[in-house]
Amino acid sequence: MKVLNTINEVRNLVKEWKTQALKIGFVPTMGYLHEGHESLLKRASQENDRVVVSIFVNPMQFGPKEDLSTYPRDLERDSVVCERAGANIIFHPTNEEIYFDDFSSFVDMNGLTSGLCGKSRPTHFRGVCTVVTKLFNIVTPDRAYFGEKDAQQLAIIKRLVRDLNIDVEVIGCPIVREEDGLAKSSRNTYLSEEERDAATILNKALTLAKSKIQDGERKAENIIKIIENKIDEEKLAKIDYIEVVDSFSMENVKEISKSVLVAVAVFIGKTRLIDNFTYEL
Amino acid sequence: MKVLNTINEVRNLVKEWKTQALKIGFVPTMGYLHEGHESLLKRASQENDRVVVSIFVNPMQFGPKEDLSTYPRDLERDSVVCERAGANIIFHPTNEEIYFDDFSSFVDMNGLTSGLCGKSRPTHFRGVCTVVTKLFNIVTPDRAYFGEKDAQQLAIIKRLVRDLNIDVEVIGCPIVREEDGLAKSSRNTYLSEEERDAATILNKALTLAKSKIQDGERKAENIIKIIENKIDEEKLAKIDYIEVVDSFSMENVKEISKSVLVAVAVFIGKTRLIDNFTYEL
Repeated sequence: MKVLNTINEVRNLVKEWKTQALKIGFVPTMGYLHEGHESLLKRASQENDRVVVSIFVNPMQFGPKEDLSTYPRDLERDSVVCERAGANIIFHPTNEEIYFDDFSSFVDMNGLTSGLCGKSRPTHFRGVCTVVTKLFNIVTPDRAYFGEKDAQQLAIIKRLVRDLNIDVEVIGCPIVREEDGLAKSSRNTYLSEEERDAATILNKALTLAKSKIQDGERKAENIIKIIENKIDEEKLAKIDYIEVVDSFSMENVKEISKSVLVAVAVFIGKTRLIDNFTYEL
Repeated sequence: MKVLNTINEVRNLVKEWKTQALKIGFVPTMGYLHEGHESLLKRASQENDRVVVSIFVNPMQFGPKEDLSTYPRDLERDSVVCERAGANIIFHPTNEEIYFDDFSSFVDMNGLTSGLCGKSRPTHFRGVCTVVTKLFNIVTPDRAYFGEKDAQQLAIIKRLVRDLNIDVEVIGCPIVREEDGLAKSSRNTYLSEEERDAATILNKALTLAKSKIQDGERKAENIIKIIENKIDEEKLAKIDYIEVVDSFSMENVKEISKSVLVAVAVFIGKTRLIDNFTYEL
């Protein structure tokens, strides 16, 4: 496995692979890899001849008051995870390699980006769409792997790829959880011991909501209320949003029909965590 | 030469060419081809093994009050020009092939898009950046050719390709003119006989300005005044803008130094025409 810092090095190696008709899987990450990332890497290495993972904490997707400077980083540990999961390249560029001083282009989207995380993080998905477009152009993968924990991001990337005719297959992979149900996240490292316990409330509330849907509840407002009441039991938790949306359009629904995404964002202390499930009728 | 209407047909043929390591030149157009386009096609066929030309009147780059519906179209005549100039594929998609009903992504840029044509056509370059990104993703050319008549567009595409790491070489080609100096444009077809005569004022004014710079004039405001006075001699002409900008940043300059673009947009009757020259000190 190689750690490459420049776009040209990645391009050259990828082009060499392409002349041999090797299929390339790509896992874009911000590093500090956990078992969720590892599941993406393993799937990518099962389904492709070569695997590229990018580790880049993308400044453009952080808001001015967000945790860019404190976002956890540990390349040495990440390298072990990547190697073990079968990656061939870690692409680990500097900010300067990705963004020129006079960088001025952007990729964005209407509709899908406006609700859910887009509401509390208004420039976030512009940053995501822009960096993912860039990374796709650099790595030119056959397949790219994203976690379903970032369900809105996954829907946006799929739409982006379709709309801009990017020749890559986007594959969503299931959420990986801790034993007590907390969704794996690099941001879990921010939590104190007490907060770590409190954080289980997200999955508890979602599990309860799911069981109510399975029991026949179809009104989105009732589902939201059930989740809200459950989360309110945890005094360290502060709700950012609870939404029930169509899985494809990300538009709010009143009645549960077809395929819905039930998604929450909750502050546990200062740490904002997200979780979700998709329900197909 | 083949006329292809679908993205898949283009992709499949291009992929076949790539397996043979053939170099691909690309000329994106809105059709109604004139000698300016033909010069791009000829250069593309000189410098590449295969040439793709797209003919697509892109609705996204027209404003609500602009000439989308009346924009001239003549695929039969265009096919003759393309074949003669050595093109291998005309990609001629429908609107539906390019834009799904729920199309929601866009590519845009700060800075370079705000002045010149971007001022009077505020959504124009978003449409251009988006469709060019899409076409590049479909055709995956090695080289793409654009006319210098659309100087701001050329600067924007070069920046876009750099910023988004699109793996294509963007090549600007000189303006092709009628014998009396009028820059070739598909929109010249809108002009009445009287307007056609009046339209020569753009190049006359620019030629005068260029001679003044060659004689030592360095103040942008004086150059603008010279152009303004000259165009005002023509009573069918109404100035949209006259600007002197840095060739790379498209920012207004006060003094002429390094490389400047002197650009005008002028209404001749209802027809908006543009012209320019670049001056390197």
